[in-house]
Amino acid sequence: MSSSTRKKAVILLSGGLDSATTLACAQSEGYDCYALSFEYGQRHSAELHAAQRVAAAMSAHEHRVLHLDLGVLGGSALTDRNIDVPTSPSVGIPVTYVPARNTIFLSFALAWAEILQADDIFIGVNAVDYSGYPDCRPDYIKAYEVMANLATKVGVEGHRMTIHTPLIDLSKADIIRLGLAKGIDYGLTVSCYAADDQGRACGECDSCRIRAAGFADAGIKDPTIYQA
Amino acid sequence: MSSSTRKKAVILLSGGLDSATTLACAQSEGYDCYALSFEYGQRHSAELHAAQRVAAAMSAHEHRVLHLDLGVLGGSALTDRNIDVPTSPSVGIPVTYVPARNTIFLSFALAWAEILQADDIFIGVNAVDYSGYPDCRPDYIKAYEVMANLATKVGVEGHRMTIHTPLIDLSKADIIRLGLAKGIDYGLTVSCYAADDQGRACGECDSCRIRAAGFADAGIKDPTIYQA
Repeated sequence: MSSSTRKKAVILLSGGLDSATTLACAQSEGYDCYALSFEYGQRHSAELHAAQRVAAAMSAHEHRVLHLDLGVLGGSALTDRNIDVPTSPSVGIPVTYVPARNTIFLSFALAWAEILQADDIFIGVNAVDYSGYPDCRPDYIKAYEVMANLATKVGVEGHRMTIHTPLIDLSKADIIRLGLAKGIDYGLTVSCYAADDQGRACGECDSCRIRAAGFADAGIKDPTIYQA
Repeated sequence: MSSSTRKKAVILLSGGLDSATTLACAQSEGYDCYALSFEYGQRHSAELHAAQRVAAAMSAHEHRVLHLDLGVLGGSALTDRNIDVPTSPSVGIPVTYVPARNTIFLSFALAWAEILQADDIFIGVNAVDYSGYPDCRPDYIKAYEVMANLATKVGVEGHRMTIHTPLIDLSKADIIRLGLAKGIDYGLTVSCYAADDQGRACGECDSCRIRAAGFADAGIKDPTIYQA
């Protein structure tokens, strides 16, 4: 199929393992992939550099980065420097939860999809290893899709917007196996909440622990480089 | 009731007539009002100055302005300088429609509400004079509310988030009468899509026409100052 007749999809790309795998899924379903990342007051820029490497390595059709003011609203260890990133496992919803983050990210994806006349959005949420975030649950995604179809010209004009969540029922080990089968180099990705400028992981935060356990469960060597 | 025990609400405040009236409604229901405005690549800053005047005049508890990159995504006459603002009435969805705008704005309101532990969000959408925007319809707002209650800690912890739309069934004339009864000085507000730096209106865009017709229908003199 020529590029002009291929379906377009917007892919939320963080630079982590899950969103890279999600991009690979969209690519293998034949979409022209428009990757969207956010600079939202993260403590480090390693994640965004990883997103750029992943988008380039996986031949995304386009990659845009939007700057957001989430830090102005505060409320999360990931955007508010007055809250420490925890190094022991969390109970309930962790302080690394960013209020309404996926809702905000999906809303920009929806805007871009409408402009591109794309009917498909991919997001790498996961209900199994979801760290207690409410906006990673299947019911939430379904409700978002219903809303999205009422929100836009797409809905009015008889198209249908679909929110794809190819990882939602997979364990971290399953995600890693899926991505490797699609040829992903996970050495390009950064999962750590507290990575340094070179993208080296702390090995202690929730995200590092979940990633390491996933590789261990899959019986595969993790290419993550840790801080000394 | 002391300030610490009053209910909090987040109010989307554009600086226009509708959102000023919505703020007045929230105030008269006894909420501490947290007003939220966006700088999103509008062609003029008159709207934001109006929002600041309105928030101050109406004693909003707090007023924050978030800067958004909507222009990067393009697609609307209000954010893309390559598309002209029309001066004749539109058929269907007008080019001044900003893709997914209310969805994006409500998502930041939701984030702030969650941080403030507020259960209430007010938005001045209107299904009568809604200029053909899909994200002003009652079905859309209901679907957003369902999604919002699944998206956040609020939903998980047994509170219930409510999206209030006090203007949704009112004509522009009704809105003006309601606001005047609540003491609003509509001279502080700017509705025009192409206002100049002094906030003077063009008198020709959709928004100017709808506003002027509303004051005429209500039999009230419009305090709008027009460009020479």
